[in-house]
Amino acid sequence: MSTRSGKLVIIGGAEDKKHDMTILREVVRLAGGKHARIVVMTVATELPIDVGAEYIEVFDTIGVADVRMFDVSNRESANAKSAIKAIEDATCVFFTGGDQVRVTKLLGGTKMDAALHERHESGLLLAGTSAGASMMSSTMIVSGVSETNPKVGIVEMAPGMEFISGVVIDQHFAQRGRFGRLFSAVAQYPHHLGLGIDENTAMVVDGLEFSVIGAGAVNVIDAGALTHSNIEDVRNGDDLALCGIHVHILPSGYGFHLRDRTPIARRRGVDNE
Amino acid sequence: MSTRSGKLVIIGGAEDKKHDMTILREVVRLAGGKHARIVVMTVATELPIDVGAEYIEVFDTIGVADVRMFDVSNRESANAKSAIKAIEDATCVFFTGGDQVRVTKLLGGTKMDAALHERHESGLLLAGTSAGASMMSSTMIVSGVSETNPKVGIVEMAPGMEFISGVVIDQHFAQRGRFGRLFSAVAQYPHHLGLGIDENTAMVVDGLEFSVIGAGAVNVIDAGALTHSNIEDVRNGDDLALCGIHVHILPSGYGFHLRDRTPIARRRGVDNE
Repeated sequence: MSTRSGKLVIIGGAEDKKHDMTILREVVRLAGGKHARIVVMTVATELPIDVGAEYIEVFDTIGVADVRMFDVSNRESANAKSAIKAIEDATCVFFTGGDQVRVTKLLGGTKMDAALHERHESGLLLAGTSAGASMMSSTMIVSGVSETNPKVGIVEMAPGMEFISGVVIDQHFAQRGRFGRLFSAVAQYPHHLGLGIDENTAMVVDGLEFSVIGAGAVNVIDAGALTHSNIEDVRNGDDLALCGIHVHILPSGYGFHLRDRTPIARRRGVDNE
Repeated sequence: MSTRSGKLVIIGGAEDKKHDMTILREVVRLAGGKHARIVVMTVATELPIDVGAEYIEVFDTIGVADVRMFDVSNRESANAKSAIKAIEDATCVFFTGGDQVRVTKLLGGTKMDAALHERHESGLLLAGTSAGASMMSSTMIVSGVSETNPKVGIVEMAPGMEFISGVVIDQHFAQRGRFGRLFSAVAQYPHHLGLGIDENTAMVVDGLEFSVIGAGAVNVIDAGALTHSNIEDVRNGDDLALCGIHVHILPSGYGFHLRDRTPIARRRGVDNE
């Protein structure tokens, strides 16, 4: 779990774009306010024009003068000089929703990928929603079954874009009944923290800590605490037994220390386990 | 948490009635097999004829010769001699789904209620599915919002029929995304264990232990372990912060000791926390 100099805003999808716009306003604030220079990355979606235009309009409404869209529909475009140039002057790169596998297969290992990491390490804000949230971690959820108990084989994992390590991120979390699939994911990798982000909710990662903003909660699933699991004995499709998982439900105002695995109750000072 | 002599089969709804019928076969086995005498209680539903007929057919298919239906559509019928007579010779009373409040308001405090408790204490098997599961506990969930993060006021609680104490039961659990509402329920009553039962899944309670049968899992939420909660500081509609909840996910073959609050891994011996 590395420290970094740039922050991450990881959004659970369906963030408000019409009313308070709490999360997107915070993205803008962290990106420099009126002077923000935001690149909307539509690589995850097959509808870049529609999705990109919506975010450009929203950021414009919030008051960002310099917001532009960059789409990557093939690896050539992510290796082109224009790709590096696009993020060179940005203060924030915002990844839209879509399919997280499009992000890794089109962007992974390209010159733009390298430039994003380099610029993030020296302070560039990265934000992403839905698929743009999932792809942030080193190990990402590609797809899975919602509204089920934990089972072997219901969640497909793959390497993510590695902007944050030691965690597995899931989104649209409470709204799509995804406890089962995130439990299944961390049962395989108990050293990773499961982070289930509700819709219209975001975690703002700053170094080894994150804080929560928005309407729902970030659900932290700590499977490192497992006292028993049957994962050694079961086969594809079998039910998982998981005993002693620790869960922390953190709404706006709360935070979490990623290395210490302890919640931070910002509203009334620190209250660790 | 009292010991009892009769067992309980508490079903998370939508139990299989056409294929393996694992759960309903186990109900029959515990009720005496071919010699079972089952009363199907339709008090929870406003469609007693339809619902009752379906269970009579299923139990008949399984091979129970003596299965009959008893409906309670007003308190008078639950105080009548015929009500006591109906359960006098039964080896199992099976509560169908519907609305759990119908059970408490029509049956609660009647002579039939007293007779059910008395006969259960001396060995009568009680089974219930969906609403018939919720009403089993001393404190029951009446209604609530699914697929949301935990919040104050999203779950309505009321006294249940008190066949089991120290727990709050929720049903259709994974399938309807109900972690949020059960977390909200136990946040108010951390001394109660939250038991979220998936569809086509049941817990068989025998004294202070239960074991799990069926296709899904029983999700045990132990909020007694809470290290921090904001419930003192929040108002209706506010998001709940809950830190350090312990969760156990127990599929078929696993069990739990209700007083010790420890999982039992029956498949490979006991593995407590």
